[in-house]
Amino acid sequence: MEIKKVVIIGSGNVATNLAEALFNAKIKIIQIISRTLENAKQLANIVNCEYATDLGAIKKADLYIISTSDDSIKSIANHVELKNKFVVHTAGSVPVDILSVNSDNFGVFYPLQTFKKKTIENFKEIPICIEASNNKRLSQLEKLALTISKNIYFLNSKQRLKIHVSAVFVNNFINHLMAITNDYINNENINKDILKPLLNKTFKNISNKNPAEIQTGPAIRNDQLTIQKHLDLLEDNTNMQKIYKALTDSIINFYTE
Amino acid sequence: MEIKKVVIIGSGNVATNLAEALFNAKIKIIQIISRTLENAKQLANIVNCEYATDLGAIKKADLYIISTSDDSIKSIANHVELKNKFVVHTAGSVPVDILSVNSDNFGVFYPLQTFKKKTIENFKEIPICIEASNNKRLSQLEKLALTISKNIYFLNSKQRLKIHVSAVFVNNFINHLMAITNDYINNENINKDILKPLLNKTFKNISNKNPAEIQTGPAIRNDQLTIQKHLDLLEDNTNMQKIYKALTDSIINFYTE
Repeated sequence: MEIKKVVIIGSGNVATNLAEALFNAKIKIIQIISRTLENAKQLANIVNCEYATDLGAIKKADLYIISTSDDSIKSIANHVELKNKFVVHTAGSVPVDILSVNSDNFGVFYPLQTFKKKTIENFKEIPICIEASNNKRLSQLEKLALTISKNIYFLNSKQRLKIHVSAVFVNNFINHLMAITNDYINNENINKDILKPLLNKTFKNISNKNPAEIQTGPAIRNDQLTIQKHLDLLEDNTNMQKIYKALTDSIINFYTE
Repeated sequence: MEIKKVVIIGSGNVATNLAEALFNAKIKIIQIISRTLENAKQLANIVNCEYATDLGAIKKADLYIISTSDDSIKSIANHVELKNKFVVHTAGSVPVDILSVNSDNFGVFYPLQTFKKKTIENFKEIPICIEASNNKRLSQLEKLALTISKNIYFLNSKQRLKIHVSAVFVNNFINHLMAITNDYINNENINKDILKPLLNKTFKNISNKNPAEIQTGPAIRNDQLTIQKHLDLLEDNTNMQKIYKALTDSIINFYTE
């Protein structure tokens, strides 16, 4: 049995991107459910389907995708209208078992990317991490995933959580390092464009080479003189100083263990 | 007076890249001095000049560029043969005053990039941060810098140190975040390519948008449930756990202060 009709519960960043990707892949989205009428309506218009704010009005579909905040997944899955229906969630850090109220009809459909409603992503390269309560369901999710992406990963909940924490390092933390550094330079009235060529080179390096093998800087040289100069300079900036210490210690440990 | 003849002291990553850039810009490198004969010879061959291992053999030039390890700059500058000569160093974190033994003839010529001997950089976009003991010397350095780059910055020693610590955040720390995350995923037997699309998107975002305005993830939502899940998961990985804490705290503080 192929998944032909899908209901999407949620209208946030992930729900919006996923709905549009499935819609463009000719998967029939038959309904958007969202607590906020305006959001439900807006997304439903884009993917040309009905909408509702109440789970009581949910329609019959082959698959129900819960793409809401992590802490609302369980209560939605427990709704009487979803009983024995095939339900998946899209969260990186929530175990599949949270849906186990639904006997043997559940799974996870987690696209590994950072999403914004306003920017619709091309899913072709985006890894879709899937998991399901049985092989039949897994195979159905695989087929569905392949309609939008060529990178399908079969991960259990523990592995998915590890990928999720990795995504925090690769996206959230890299982004924040750049944010605080720009802020720091800006306070010194230096144009932050000064860092662009270095950022470009950094990215080129970590994309094309093994980052563990190309590490440079005072930490890997264990150059305590420079490290201390930097720490003194950051005396007034507690956040940066703590980050500096944690990352410098980690680099030193990484190469001496 | 224009700088026409240059002696480069050092043969490491910065010295090599700088020597080649100046050579390609038709600046005459007349001598390479390096303690290691083989290195001196190798670089001298590339830029078609003489070489020596001993400062006593140094030739007469318009400018002497000390591009060695930070802690050797002072003793080199103090060498009798460099007395009253125009001397600069290329270090980000070393104050210009370290050269003040040289009366009023000194400065700094700091290219802001990560260099490797094996990969010769195109200097056109690379910021050159210059400083000098007087305006005449500064103007000479500016002219020299403009022969290889279009991005010249006039920074004092304090500003340059701040740029240097910023470079550690943007290059060394981003690189290490990627190294430990790859390592972490590898230990889980998941192909690290799974992170590539997210890394590409992260870089695209921080290059084209203001990173402070596009932060996502559990920290900026102050999602303590997910943060705790991640910290528990990292219980066996002290380095990653400490980095996670420092960066998460910083994100929370950055957006609540």
